[in-house]
Amino acid sequence: MKDTTVDSVKLIDIPKIKDVRGNLSVVEKDIIPYNIKRVYYLYDVPSDAYRGGHAHKNLYQFLIPLSGSFDVILKDGKNTKTITLNKPDKGLLIVPGIWRELENFSSGSVCLVLASEEYDEADYIYDFQDFTTMKSI
Amino acid sequence: MKDTTVDSVKLIDIPKIKDVRGNLSVVEKDIIPYNIKRVYYLYDVPSDAYRGGHAHKNLYQFLIPLSGSFDVILKDGKNTKTITLNKPDKGLLIVPGIWRELENFSSGSVCLVLASEEYDEADYIYDFQDFTTMKSI
Repeated sequence: MKDTTVDSVKLIDIPKIKDVRGNLSVVEKDIIPYNIKRVYYLYDVPSDAYRGGHAHKNLYQFLIPLSGSFDVILKDGKNTKTITLNKPDKGLLIVPGIWRELENFSSGSVCLVLASEEYDEADYIYDFQDFTTMKSI
Repeated sequence: MKDTTVDSVKLIDIPKIKDVRGNLSVVEKDIIPYNIKRVYYLYDVPSDAYRGGHAHKNLYQFLIPLSGSFDVILKDGKNTKTITLNKPDKGLLIVPGIWRELENFSSGSVCLVLASEEYDEADYIYDFQDFTTMKSI
């Protein structure tokens, strides 16, 4: 996790099959660099809510705005980058070692997350000072 | 796929972590009886659209209404059952050998599908007559 920067985080196009009956997008192998171990999603988020505020040591996450929009603030201890997610066919691959915060949720927004590992409390870094220390060692 | 019926299809409660910052639901092992190989989602669906109209020989699928609502019509060659999906913390596990159709989409609805296998054209049954024949043999 030490060497990753905000520029390691990538916006990825998700294949989209357009149809008069609606759109269908698919995430399978080759789109993201891992097998999906865990799927979760945020919903019923108040528009003034703020979420995230942590980093992971080993976990990769792929965030997709399935409905509405929200901002992802990324920090690597040196630089900060803000990315607005608002298209269901564009996902954000967050690599390990990146502090992330989610905010500015639109009404009715849904954030889908496809994670590379099962839940592991020990993989979380909740303190920003600890995070910057770990990144600088 | 021969022995499954519309009663083999199960509504499953998805764990929900309630929070003033919004709700979070998680699908991991123990919720569904397979590893997720493929994730896809339907969106921008016109409210008069009709989707589905097929069965699978081996594929399991778990459908979650991440936004809005829609109806799932299930057929096993003898019986028909209609289930309305409208809660992001209740998903529908469709076992192999069940004909399914999706309709009555609300505006802005999103249907997330977690599938047990990668895409395999040979696993699809597109003809209802073929389907009823295969179920009755």
